[in-house]
Amino acid sequence: MLKGKIAKLAVSDVRFPTSLEQHGSDAMHANPDYSAAYVVIETDDGLKGYGITFTVGRGTEIVVCAVEALSTLVIGKTLEDIVSNFSGFYRCLTSDSQMRWIGPEKGVIQLASAAILNAIWDMWARAEGKDPKQLIRCIDFRYITDALTEQEALSELISIEEEMLKEGYPAYTTSCAWLGYSDQQLTQLCSTALTEGWTKFKVKVGADLQDDIRRCSLIRKMIGPENSLMIDANQRWDVAEAISYVTKLAEFRPLWIEEPTCPDDILGHAAISKALAPLGIGVATGEQCHNRVMFKQFLQASALQFVQIDSCRVGSVNENLAIMLMAAKFRVPVCPHAGGVGLCELVQHLILFDYISVSASLENRMCEYVDHLHEHFKSPTVIRNAHYMPPKDPGFSSEMFDESVQKHQFPHGEVWRSILEKNGS
Amino acid sequence: MLKGKIAKLAVSDVRFPTSLEQHGSDAMHANPDYSAAYVVIETDDGLKGYGITFTVGRGTEIVVCAVEALSTLVIGKTLEDIVSNFSGFYRCLTSDSQMRWIGPEKGVIQLASAAILNAIWDMWARAEGKDPKQLIRCIDFRYITDALTEQEALSELISIEEEMLKEGYPAYTTSCAWLGYSDQQLTQLCSTALTEGWTKFKVKVGADLQDDIRRCSLIRKMIGPENSLMIDANQRWDVAEAISYVTKLAEFRPLWIEEPTCPDDILGHAAISKALAPLGIGVATGEQCHNRVMFKQFLQASALQFVQIDSCRVGSVNENLAIMLMAAKFRVPVCPHAGGVGLCELVQHLILFDYISVSASLENRMCEYVDHLHEHFKSPTVIRNAHYMPPKDPGFSSEMFDESVQKHQFPHGEVWRSILEKNGS
Repeated sequence: MLKGKIAKLAVSDVRFPTSLEQHGSDAMHANPDYSAAYVVIETDDGLKGYGITFTVGRGTEIVVCAVEALSTLVIGKTLEDIVSNFSGFYRCLTSDSQMRWIGPEKGVIQLASAAILNAIWDMWARAEGKDPKQLIRCIDFRYITDALTEQEALSELISIEEEMLKEGYPAYTTSCAWLGYSDQQLTQLCSTALTEGWTKFKVKVGADLQDDIRRCSLIRKMIGPENSLMIDANQRWDVAEAISYVTKLAEFRPLWIEEPTCPDDILGHAAISKALAPLGIGVATGEQCHNRVMFKQFLQASALQFVQIDSCRVGSVNENLAIMLMAAKFRVPVCPHAGGVGLCELVQHLILFDYISVSASLENRMCEYVDHLHEHFKSPTVIRNAHYMPPKDPGFSSEMFDESVQKHQFPHGEVWRSILEKNGS
Repeated sequence: MLKGKIAKLAVSDVRFPTSLEQHGSDAMHANPDYSAAYVVIETDDGLKGYGITFTVGRGTEIVVCAVEALSTLVIGKTLEDIVSNFSGFYRCLTSDSQMRWIGPEKGVIQLASAAILNAIWDMWARAEGKDPKQLIRCIDFRYITDALTEQEALSELISIEEEMLKEGYPAYTTSCAWLGYSDQQLTQLCSTALTEGWTKFKVKVGADLQDDIRRCSLIRKMIGPENSLMIDANQRWDVAEAISYVTKLAEFRPLWIEEPTCPDDILGHAAISKALAPLGIGVATGEQCHNRVMFKQFLQASALQFVQIDSCRVGSVNENLAIMLMAAKFRVPVCPHAGGVGLCELVQHLILFDYISVSASLENRMCEYVDHLHEHFKSPTVIRNAHYMPPKDPGFSSEMFDESVQKHQFPHGEVWRSILEKNGS
């Protein structure tokens, strides 16, 4: 199954008009249209692989352009060429001696690499099973050996039992309290979530302190003292501002403040962590942390207490393995970012690997869940009693229905044709 | 002159086939084709502005695509709209609530912002003169107020005399010792440079230690003990590897080691700085440092001893002002990255501003110079006795000859048509 050559790579600009109802709104992204650069690769013997990278609307065409540029490094290779030296292929894709200049390993070009690598992982997972030791050989250890060597990574790999299949992996919900929702909407969604068994809730904050005090107070009252509340500022503040603002929300006992400042500011996050520790509030970040070298430093500097990996921001499973293994070495729990479109589908695989093969613990661990757009995926996430149930179909759960892709193509799919006509453009 | 609306924005993919002669080759970029996304903006009353961002070949089309996406934020605005609240416009361009997801402020989208902002600065400079205080209002201080406030920035602004016009700004040369050059080529270029008055020389290292020892020894012998030697590894090593490798080159007394490891690794650079300080070797970095928040941390962590700003990597003059002012506050000299195509033309303006309005010192300060591709610019850099002479034409020196742009368009300009035909593609 690994002998066929990758003969085709097609990439689509797929956008969902989520901004029309303020789903996903936060302090920095007022009106996101959840979108994806969606990649389909196909070998000359008919094997397919599906990969996405998540975006929020405008600019997706730039990622599509980058995927097309990188496709020359993929076409013509067999799956065996790639996976037999996967860290070598990873480096080839992320370090092309001309294209690395416009990264390196960050921004558009890293998102494009993620989409392609996600498709390759999907293809590989469809073709055959893998054992954890094989996974380690997919990591490019360059620049991180001072924090984690290949040998140490192997020794972190411990295997535990299959309770996951019964209980599932704990999830928290972000669906109740987007910034653009009214108090009434928030109350209603929260009340429904409680009856469905949710116990961990995230609230978007950061635009206006009085609003946030009112919203956090409302939610804390509804969920009671035992359940968990997390708050998320989506990079809104400067460092001192973050400390002062969050201190004023401490009475609502948030477990963490997420993205308090610029995602690049390791030392800033370290200062915030130090200031908030006496209040019992941790710092969480990672959804816009662009590579393993940044995560390494966040860990080295004790700048976060929750590592939020993302399945589409960094270089796919390869780089997320490195990040999860470093988190384990530094004894910091991994609580992935998800939501958007497809992020829940993909990241559930990573979090199960983290539990089964790396951390073996659920303490302080949970995975984000947002209840949107799953209907477009052939193997959608299954949530039972606020837990992710392990996916059972072969692959990376990243395949979308053809019809969904067609309808939501930007700008010529029927959904966008109709919206753009209405707007007179 | 500021009332006209920006009515047109054109962007070209311009590439020079420098890889044919190994110009620009280093330990990570074996065969760069020096290139640019070249932006021309024009108001409806005929004022023009020219901006570039530098790239090294493949992938330039992605930056072009990003410039096109950002152009919607520029078209229809007057120059007055923009410059009357330039930090507001900067934030609008770099923080579009959908497009920021694919950065933010890094990689392709930041390079595209740089090209557009460089064009606006060029247009503004052609339209009128500016005083330094006005410049401060172009900086977005978000995320850096813990290191530098607007008030502090203003007080850093001191004005000194016009000696620059007589002596010029000291330069060093990188043209003698690209990694792909033979020893003979290197000896000959170095000998010519000495007769031309050059006293500071940079050597590319990092691919092979024995080669580097031979090359550094050769150059140190030729230039004598008084002249300066700098070495540049272009991100080749892990942290421990960098320390051990550079220690073995210490006998040649390099002033700095440039880009010893991943450009994102602030803490790694701090560790290297600490280890090399007793050997009298500083650490220099910045040409791939993607924004002011990263520079802030490099300064806070004492991770570099030479700040290498780049005129095209970050958000143009606006962001470089913030970086130069922070460097001044932390008492670290600015020694810009240049070379490529157009970088010398642009950065000479910044370094003069740094000297005249900020640092007022030449101690440990110099600007990189590479002797290539200047013939394509209407106001090329003037070097006299190894010094940059202050540019006298209005604007940012970023305008290229139409003929150069036409010929080097990728892939349809005549230079590339002929190369691609020869290669049978």
